[in-house]
Order: sequence, then structure tokens, then C-alpha cells
Amino acid sequence: MTPHVLAVAESDVGSVLVAILVAFVAAKVGGEVMERLGQPAVVGEISAGIVVGPSVLGLVPIEGTDGAVMLLLAELGVLVLLFQVGLETEPSELRAVGSQAAAVGILGVVLPFAGGFGVALLAGNDGIESAFVATVLVATSVGITARVMGDLGVITRRSSRIILGAALIDDVLGLLVLAVVSGLSEGGLTVASVVVLLVEAVGFIGVLMLFGPRLMGRLSHVIEWPRLPRAPFAIAVAILLGLSVAAEQLGLALIVGAFLAGSIFSATREHHRLESQFEPVADLLTPFFFVVTGAQVDVGSFADPSVLLFAGLLTVVAVAGKLGGGVLGARGLDRLDRTIVGVGMVPRGEVGIIVAGLGLSKGIVDLDLFGAALLMVIATTLVAPPALKVLHARAR
Amino acid sequence: MTPHVLAVAESDVGSVLVAILVAFVAAKVGGEVMERLGQPAVVGEISAGIVVGPSVLGLVPIEGTDGAVMLLLAELGVLVLLFQVGLETEPSELRAVGSQAAAVGILGVVLPFAGGFGVALLAGNDGIESAFVATVLVATSVGITARVMGDLGVITRRSSRIILGAALIDDVLGLLVLAVVSGLSEGGLTVASVVVLLVEAVGFIGVLMLFGPRLMGRLSHVIEWPRLPRAPFAIAVAILLGLSVAAEQLGLALIVGAFLAGSIFSATREHHRLESQFEPVADLLTPFFFVVTGAQVDVGSFADPSVLLFAGLLTVVAVAGKLGGGVLGARGLDRLDRTIVGVGMVPRGEVGIIVAGLGLSKGIVDLDLFGAALLMVIATTLVAPPALKVLHARAR
Repeated sequence: MTPHVLAVAESDVGSVLVAILVAFVAAKVGGEVMERLGQPAVVGEISAGIVVGPSVLGLVPIEGTDGAVMLLLAELGVLVLLFQVGLETEPSELRAVGSQAAAVGILGVVLPFAGGFGVALLAGNDGIESAFVATVLVATSVGITARVMGDLGVITRRSSRIILGAALIDDVLGLLVLAVVSGLSEGGLTVASVVVLLVEAVGFIGVLMLFGPRLMGRLSHVIEWPRLPRAPFAIAVAILLGLSVAAEQLGLALIVGAFLAGSIFSATREHHRLESQFEPVADLLTPFFFVVTGAQVDVGSFADPSVLLFAGLLTVVAVAGKLGGGVLGARGLDRLDRTIVGVGMVPRGEVGIIVAGLGLSKGIVDLDLFGAALLMVIATTLVAPPALKVLHARAR
Repeated sequence: MTPHVLAVAESDVGSVLVAILVAFVAAKVGGEVMERLGQPAVVGEISAGIVVGPSVLGLVPIEGTDGAVMLLLAELGVLVLLFQVGLETEPSELRAVGSQAAAVGILGVVLPFAGGFGVALLAGNDGIESAFVATVLVATSVGITARVMGDLGVITRRSSRIILGAALIDDVLGLLVLAVVSGLSEGGLTVASVVVLLVEAVGFIGVLMLFGPRLMGRLSHVIEWPRLPRAPFAIAVAILLGLSVAAEQLGLALIVGAFLAGSIFSATREHHRLESQFEPVADLLTPFFFVVTGAQVDVGSFADPSVLLFAGLLTVVAVAGKLGGGVLGARGLDRLDRTIVGVGMVPRGEVGIIVAGLGLSKGIVDLDLFGAALLMVIATTLVAPPALKVLHARAR
């Protein structure tokens, strides 16, 4: 007999709770260290994730049942983060930068894809492998940039609006590219399926952005009607979860739904109260997103020089492509702000990791290519936040 | 090819996110309905859990990977709830009701155990089976009562303090009873292991309640020192998770650690800000605890008359035992307040479910006994909140 009888029945919860504790404390300590070094906290949270992740200390799992729990917390974290960003983004303001955002988004997909495809071909990969690697370079992870813009207090700047709009367009285009490349690799591509995806995506985003805020503005009194305490907050959470699930059902990324959920509350009179209610929820959940992102890095892959070299080339192309897209696409802004837009599009974050993982699971991409793609993702993710901070300091 | 390529990579997260959405919306709708019927919202949340759980609609899983995620969210929910209760409970106020709480706690363990053992023996079970069923009747689930007291705004009443103190004592005694009964069933019981458990439990709770608040009160300026926004909130979350894990490592229930974490912040100058920051976090997470509690009910077991009869007898003994403990133990209060204390100790909630599950997994308790015990747990859990509401209305 052991005195820990009850602990046995709770053991599943217990082990993952230790991982949650470690992830949370590591994120906050890493964030604090980076703040004191004058760098964005998010860099510290991702770095902390690398350290506590499976490839170094192994304290935070990303596989098995406990890993599933960590991934879910990470997903909830990025959903809450994108909801917050949406809450500060009235769709009318996004529409005002529509043509610039479209140019930045399209160029930011075309340039990195072309560059990545070329580099991968030159490195001796075949056409399909090269196309998949190029696809990893396409999608912007707006979560990282949004967090940095939030920390710097510049979400309402014109350049930030363009980044958010371009990232939305980018997400839709990235999905189309992925659908086409996956289809080619399976030999089952049809024009119809690509058109269906495009129509669904554009319809979902367009309808919510055009009618969502006006509808929710008129319903302001209705969401205060339930007797439950803080009913508008509960309704906001339900719409956040609901639109995220809906976006995923349409083949879009969950975070697109979360962003749209936030933005349709941006015009309600509950706006400011929701902002302060979501703050502690985000403080609790978003660190898991950044720690889990870091935990997916395998530091062992740093040891292979050929992987490192290829990763370096990919990173150069990835940065140059998005930077070029920003500078060329964001017409009407000054040079500094165009650079800010370009840098803001650089982080690939979780979207790149998801695409690379998909390529690996389909057997199109081998472990070396996967490692190089991951290194590129993490390099772009770590390099953008400090650069954005420096550029915004100059822009003041 | 399907346009839902990215959705494939995210499918694990997607399916559990639908369950999370369903659980959250069901809880809020159930809560709202009960509020409008004049009943505590928590009754609606548990009932909603029964409906969406595996035995009716099957929309919210409690097994497999998705089930593990739901159980973890439920656990986080009850931890946050108990932290909130602790935040409103200065240990000095608990010590002031110490002798009454001890009497209520001890009688509330002895009476239901004796009654449950007798009923189970009379129903034809052997000694070990009967002892296990009796153990299910022992532990109070303070989560349910705490939520009702919070909803009614009576957490600072003297009767509420006695319930909280008695529930803490009850938790320790319940663990001891479980340790003894489990040990007897395995034939490996030693006096030393029981003493170790008792010393650990009393030491952990005693040290934190005696020195925790004073220490944290002196550290008030230190927890404001980090540059991270809302650092005291982050530190409170870390201590909440840390003490929960520590309690579990000692063989205590996680929620004991969460309650103590809250109570050591009760004397800090951050107290009120923490209260408002934990409110939305609790609104988000605690519904999962009540929905998952409901989801564990198998409505199929309502169909068997012998199970129903036995469950009814157990419920009578369970209610009478705790009621007797409260009325006899809470000396110095008037009759109505003594009844309130007794009723507040009635819900067995998740602790009873854990003990019953342990008995099932050890093969000591069969599925019929398990079903009857679960029915008793759910009956006590559903009956107490409306009764508390009526009694508190009279006490005003």
C-alpha cells in the first residue's frame, strides 16, 4: 500500500499538470529575461520552449496524450491571441488598406515560393519535393507579429493594418498553394476543388467582414440580455470557438475564424470590457502557444552542416521574399513603413511547421528537408520580433 | 484531392475543439435556463453535461485523447474555482472556526461511512466491497458548494467558513479512509504508511495556512517587481499550479493545493485585482468541470430497478450522514445555520466519482455497485444547490 492512492486515479492529470506548470513558468521567466535585455518577450517564450522541449530538457511533451493536451492549450492560446488582435481591428479599417494589403499578400506568396522552389531544385531535389519546401515558405504566421505589435502598442498603425490584411490574404493563398501542391503530389488535382476552396474562403471572410460588425453592433443590447454574470464575455467565447471551428470546417486555418470573431466585436459597446476580460485569459493561455512552438524545434538538427547550409539558404530566400513583397506592395507608405510591413510578414511560425509536418507524413519530404524547413521557420520567427522593435523605435 | 488539406494536419485539434465548443455552450445555456427557473446555474451546467455526455448525445468525450483533453480542462476549471474560493478566505478566519469545522468534518466522515457500510452489508455485499462503497460516501466535493456560495454571495458567512474548513479536514480524513480501505483490500496495510500520509497532509496544510499569508503579504512589493505586464497575475497562476502539483505529490487532492494558493494571496494588496482577473478565467474554464462531471453519468443505469433502489438507499444515508454531521458538529450556530452547514457538506461530486472509479479499476466494486455509487454522487450533487439556495433565502 502506498499513501498516494488517490494520486494514482489522478495520475494522468498530474503528469500533464507538471508539464503545464513548467511550460508556464519557463515562458514567463524567458519573457522577463528578454524584456530586461530590451527584446520582445515572445522571443524569450519561444526560446524557453526550445529549452524545456523534447530535444533539450524533455519536460514539455508534444506527443502522446500529454502532448495532445499541450497542443490543445497552445491552440487555445493562439485563438485567444488572434481574437484580441481582431478586437482591435475594425474591418472598415482593414478595407481601407485593401489594395495595398492585397499587393503585399500576393507578392509575399509569389516571391518566397519562386525563390524556395529555385533553391530546393538547385540543391538537387525533384520537382514535387521542391514545390513542397517552397510551400513551407509561403504562409505568414500572423500570431508572432501580432503579439509583437501588441507589446509595442502599434496595432492601430497603418503599417500594422496592412500586415494584418495581407496576412489574411496570405493565409487564403497559402491554403490554395498547399491544396495545389498536395493535389499534384497525389495526382488527383481538379480545377473544381481549387475553385471551391477559393469561393468558400473568400465568401466566409467577406461575409463576416462586411456584415459581422454591423450585425453585432445592433445586437449589443441582446448579448447583455442573459442573466448569467458577464454574459457578453461568455457569448464572445462561444463565437470565438464557433467561428474557429467553422473556419476549419471550410478548410481554412482556425486562427482566421478567431481573428474574424474578434473583429466583429470591435464595434460593440462591450469592446473595452471584453478587452480587459480577455487580457488575463491571454496571459494564461498564449504562453503555451509560444512554448509549444519552441518545443517543436529539434536542436539535434543544428549539428548537420548540410542541413544547416540548406536551412540558411531557405531563410535568406524566406526573408528576402517577404521583405520584397512588403517593400514593393505597400505603395503609398514611406520606405521605413514599407520595410516594417515586409519584416512583419517574415515569421512563418506554426503554419510553416504544419505544412512541413504534412509533407513529412505524406512521405514527400525527408527528415533532412523537414529539419531544414523547421530551422528556417524558427529563424524567421526569432529574427522578426527584434527587427520590428528596432524599426518601430526609428519610426517614432 | 480535397480542399481540406490543412484541416487534416489539424484534425486532432479540430475534433476536440468541437467538443469544447459544445461543452461550453451547453453549460452556459443550461446555466441560463436554471437561473431563469430560480435555481443555481451549476445545476444547469451539470445537467447539460449529462445531456451532451457519452450516455445521451455523445458530443463530449471523456475517454481517449479527446477525453483526456476534456478532463484536463475540467481539472483546470476546478483548480481556478478553488483558487477563487481561497482568495476570499483568509486563513485566520478559518482558524477562528477551527473547532466547529473539525467536529463537522469528523462527524461528516464517521456517520456516512458507518451508514454506507451498514446499507451495503445488508444488501449482501462482503466486507471489503461494503467498505469501498462506504468510502465513496465520505469525501465532500467542496467545488459544488463553493460555486453555489459564490453565486449566492455568502462566501464570507460564518456557516460558509465552517463548511470550507470542514471540507478541508474531510478531504484529509477521506484520503486516510481511502488509504486504509485500499490497503486492507490489497492486504498490504501498514500503520507507518497511514501515519506518513497524515503527517504530510497536516504539515502541508498547516505550514501554508500558518505562514503563507504573512509571507505573501510581506512579498507584495516583490511580486510587482517583474517588468512583464500583469506580473502578479502570472505569479499567482504559477503558485496555483505549483501548490496543486505539490499537494498531489504528497498524496492530497490537487484542489487542496489550489485552495491554499488562493488563501495565501487573500492578504496581499493585489487581492482585489486578482479577483477581477480570475473572474473571466473562471468563466471560461469552470464550466468544463461541471459539464465533465455530468458527462460521467450513465443514464442507462437508471433503467435497472435494483441499482436504483440501492442508489436511493445510499443517497438517503449520504444526505443524512452529512446533515447529521453538520447539525451535531456546528455548535454555537442557530438551527438554520447548522442545517446550512450540513447541506453544504452533502455534494460528493468528483471526489466520490474518483473513489468509485478506483474501486472499479481494482476489481473490488462491480459495475452495478459502481453505477449505484455514481447515482448517489450525482443525486447529492444535484440536490444540495437548490436546498442551499432555499435555506440562505430564509436566513436573510
